[in-house]
Amino acid sequence: MTFLDMLHSAERRNGSLLCVGLDPEPAKFPDHLKGDASRIYDFCAAIVDATADLVIAFKPQIAYFAAHRAEDQLERLMEHLRRNAPQVPVILDAKRGDIGSTAEQYAREAFERYGADAVTLSPFMGFDSIQPYLKYEGKGAFLLCRTSNPGGDDLQNQRLSSVPGEPLLYEHVARLAQGPWNLNGQLGLVVGATYPAEIERVRALAPTVPLLIPGVGAQGGDAAATVRAGWRADAPIVVNSSRAILYASSGEGFAEAARRAARKTRDVLQAARG
Amino acid sequence: MTFLDMLHSAERRNGSLLCVGLDPEPAKFPDHLKGDASRIYDFCAAIVDATADLVIAFKPQIAYFAAHRAEDQLERLMEHLRRNAPQVPVILDAKRGDIGSTAEQYAREAFERYGADAVTLSPFMGFDSIQPYLKYEGKGAFLLCRTSNPGGDDLQNQRLSSVPGEPLLYEHVARLAQGPWNLNGQLGLVVGATYPAEIERVRALAPTVPLLIPGVGAQGGDAAATVRAGWRADAPIVVNSSRAILYASSGEGFAEAARRAARKTRDVLQAARG
Repeated sequence: MTFLDMLHSAERRNGSLLCVGLDPEPAKFPDHLKGDASRIYDFCAAIVDATADLVIAFKPQIAYFAAHRAEDQLERLMEHLRRNAPQVPVILDAKRGDIGSTAEQYAREAFERYGADAVTLSPFMGFDSIQPYLKYEGKGAFLLCRTSNPGGDDLQNQRLSSVPGEPLLYEHVARLAQGPWNLNGQLGLVVGATYPAEIERVRALAPTVPLLIPGVGAQGGDAAATVRAGWRADAPIVVNSSRAILYASSGEGFAEAARRAARKTRDVLQAARG
Repeated sequence: MTFLDMLHSAERRNGSLLCVGLDPEPAKFPDHLKGDASRIYDFCAAIVDATADLVIAFKPQIAYFAAHRAEDQLERLMEHLRRNAPQVPVILDAKRGDIGSTAEQYAREAFERYGADAVTLSPFMGFDSIQPYLKYEGKGAFLLCRTSNPGGDDLQNQRLSSVPGEPLLYEHVARLAQGPWNLNGQLGLVVGATYPAEIERVRALAPTVPLLIPGVGAQGGDAAATVRAGWRADAPIVVNSSRAILYASSGEGFAEAARRAARKTRDVLQAARG
């Protein structure tokens, strides 16, 4: 089963476009776990168990584990996901970008060590920085395309006079991911939720690739507008929310609160799908 | 002491522009260690001890550790570097690129967990993906600018009609790193050694920032041409060689062979400095 098949299957099974981002920050943990980096696994596993039937994907962000020397806890979490939520694809958010033999090492880290189903990558170093990941049959890779942070404009929104049609840089990346770089249908794109018009633009240039859309929830993107701009029946969107779900409550019932927050966002996204 | 001061000091002390890249691949280890990922630390520490008086910097590449679940060995290596080669700055090659709170986690990983003196970063997500690293006083950050892999052209060599002067994307990055992004003089640039004309171009646009130049040695760049194009008395260049030094011999005397290879490259670089 390819990564795209897994997304379609999870979308149908759970009736969901929602991805829960696993960005564990011990300082924000519920009171009884607060500040305890040794409980990262426990916290994330509880969130996973409470939301696995409501999501199209989970997205652990590796920096939050690495900053706390918690790679072992990420390994346990990935194992937990495979065991307890085998139908939900897992996107390892790492935004790697390096070449040749180094990219091979990063691919090995993501797909062999952690067993992720897909990974996020930066396109800055070009196609041969992406290629080593595509050698893993059935695995997916989301390329950074248009991010909605304040500095997202700095490079991504520049116009390229050296490319036919003079696209913006992010439009060029969208075309590459739809066409020449997407040898086996493994690529997707990361597009921020802040500007639905840009999601529409990416969707026009890349009609059949999955879009990973962060920025809904704590980052303020409009969930319904995001779905209308990006969703296609044959090209899933994966709408990420992290903080608004993870930290929905600081009490002992944080997992139930996370479930309620996830269900609410899931339902808003489903309703917008029409 | 700032990162730039550390580079100047190591350049003078060791009469060297050579950086030894620590990219440990157990499959390439000398015969008595071959294939044994538990000996990554031992291998790297032996290389460090054999070359510490010949280099301007060391550059461990984190992917080679992460692929082998060897973060603990990287921590020990960083500690070994601080203890046995305290005058040599250490650049953690990680090419991170993410925003806000996630970038803060990566900065914490690089500077607090591993105690690196500088890190490599991707500029694709813009200034606010760089800023969290600059909050660490005295630490350095090298931004990817022009890489010499085959795909380096794909994005970096596109012309930007939306920026005054219509620079290429890599030229735009060079200007940003020299000027508006370089708030406290902490930035440097990564520029491949394959095309000395491009190093000259980057140097013209960014006359005072340090350049990290991979691609000498196994990757085939011309060491002397590289120095002539990039070196300035007040702006160090850090010329990286990895495989040609690490794997100079497959025998028990691999560290001595590494030392001979490092000295030879160091001397070629020094001679070209004139």
